[in-house]
Amino acid sequence: MNPKIEKLIKLFAKLPRVGTRGGQRIALCLLQDKTGRGTALADAIVEACENIAPCPICGVLTDRGSGSCEFCRDHNRSNGQLCIVRDLSDVWTLEKSSVFHGRYHVIGGLLSGASGTLPQDLNLLTLPNRITSENVTEVIFALPNTVEGKTTQHYVMSIIGAVPGVSFSELASGVPLGGDLDYLDDGTLSLAFGGRKTL
Amino acid sequence: MNPKIEKLIKLFAKLPRVGTRGGQRIALCLLQDKTGRGTALADAIVEACENIAPCPICGVLTDRGSGSCEFCRDHNRSNGQLCIVRDLSDVWTLEKSSVFHGRYHVIGGLLSGASGTLPQDLNLLTLPNRITSENVTEVIFALPNTVEGKTTQHYVMSIIGAVPGVSFSELASGVPLGGDLDYLDDGTLSLAFGGRKTL
Repeated sequence: MNPKIEKLIKLFAKLPRVGTRGGQRIALCLLQDKTGRGTALADAIVEACENIAPCPICGVLTDRGSGSCEFCRDHNRSNGQLCIVRDLSDVWTLEKSSVFHGRYHVIGGLLSGASGTLPQDLNLLTLPNRITSENVTEVIFALPNTVEGKTTQHYVMSIIGAVPGVSFSELASGVPLGGDLDYLDDGTLSLAFGGRKTL
Repeated sequence: MNPKIEKLIKLFAKLPRVGTRGGQRIALCLLQDKTGRGTALADAIVEACENIAPCPICGVLTDRGSGSCEFCRDHNRSNGQLCIVRDLSDVWTLEKSSVFHGRYHVIGGLLSGASGTLPQDLNLLTLPNRITSENVTEVIFALPNTVEGKTTQHYVMSIIGAVPGVSFSELASGVPLGGDLDYLDDGTLSLAFGGRKTL
């Protein structure tokens, strides 16, 4: 195989959920295209990689040098609620559902022995300061409902400590909307039973 | 969402088998990476798009300006067999299996009313000439076993015409290796029955 094409396929194949066959398809698609999609994609990658950096306050990816991100600048969002998420994609998911109108704090990962993520790898330095300076009254944990997510949640709670007037909350566990009990795992079922609501 | 990130996601999402969620994951992966994978990928795209072009003889993508591709230059491959394939990825698949040692001709698509591919969109101009100048004795069709594939095969045969000493062949149809009859469609089953071998 031509070394230039091989290199391109290898780089694409390493991207999340692409793999070798996906990389081949993408490389062929770009090389056979006559409308300049390849150069447009390369330009967009370079522009984004050079100009995008995490917001120094909350960690959301934003324009480098703009000081803070769209969420931290928006005064309508300073309602005392701070939502702790793992990733920018979680922010997008929450924004799409319009369920939350406060501010975010992206920690950028979960404590995990398997992947070797340690407390110092997480974006937690500015967090205790934000609680007081932004008059936060509720810290909402929207981390994955996994062992790593819960471990990280407990660690972040210990970092913030007991601040008067600040409450902690986490997303409810239970049967998803449209969920069939047949397909539910025992853990979720037990959480859903334990948290049952009186009608 | 930040416009630069949004643009990057949209461009990735349009690549084959990626989609919006895949595009988000890829964009985040590149933007959060600290090892320069984004710039490396952009450089590889530009380098390949600028320097790779179809071989003027057979249509395999190769270095621009090199005259012909690795297959056309290889004298060991001039054994009189010419394999007609749709795409460079089919060449890779055949090469991986080491089942064929002749030369290729990439036609670059299949005749199809649905996608609007017409005879003039296919790489067929040089084909009749190759049959005589390369002393081809067997033309092997390795096109997809679909209506479009068969239509294209008949069209290509009519383009080449009846040349003395040149035979045409196509890949065998039947039960795939490890294939369970339970999961086989009626068309394949009927082809496999019709082509049964005496033991």
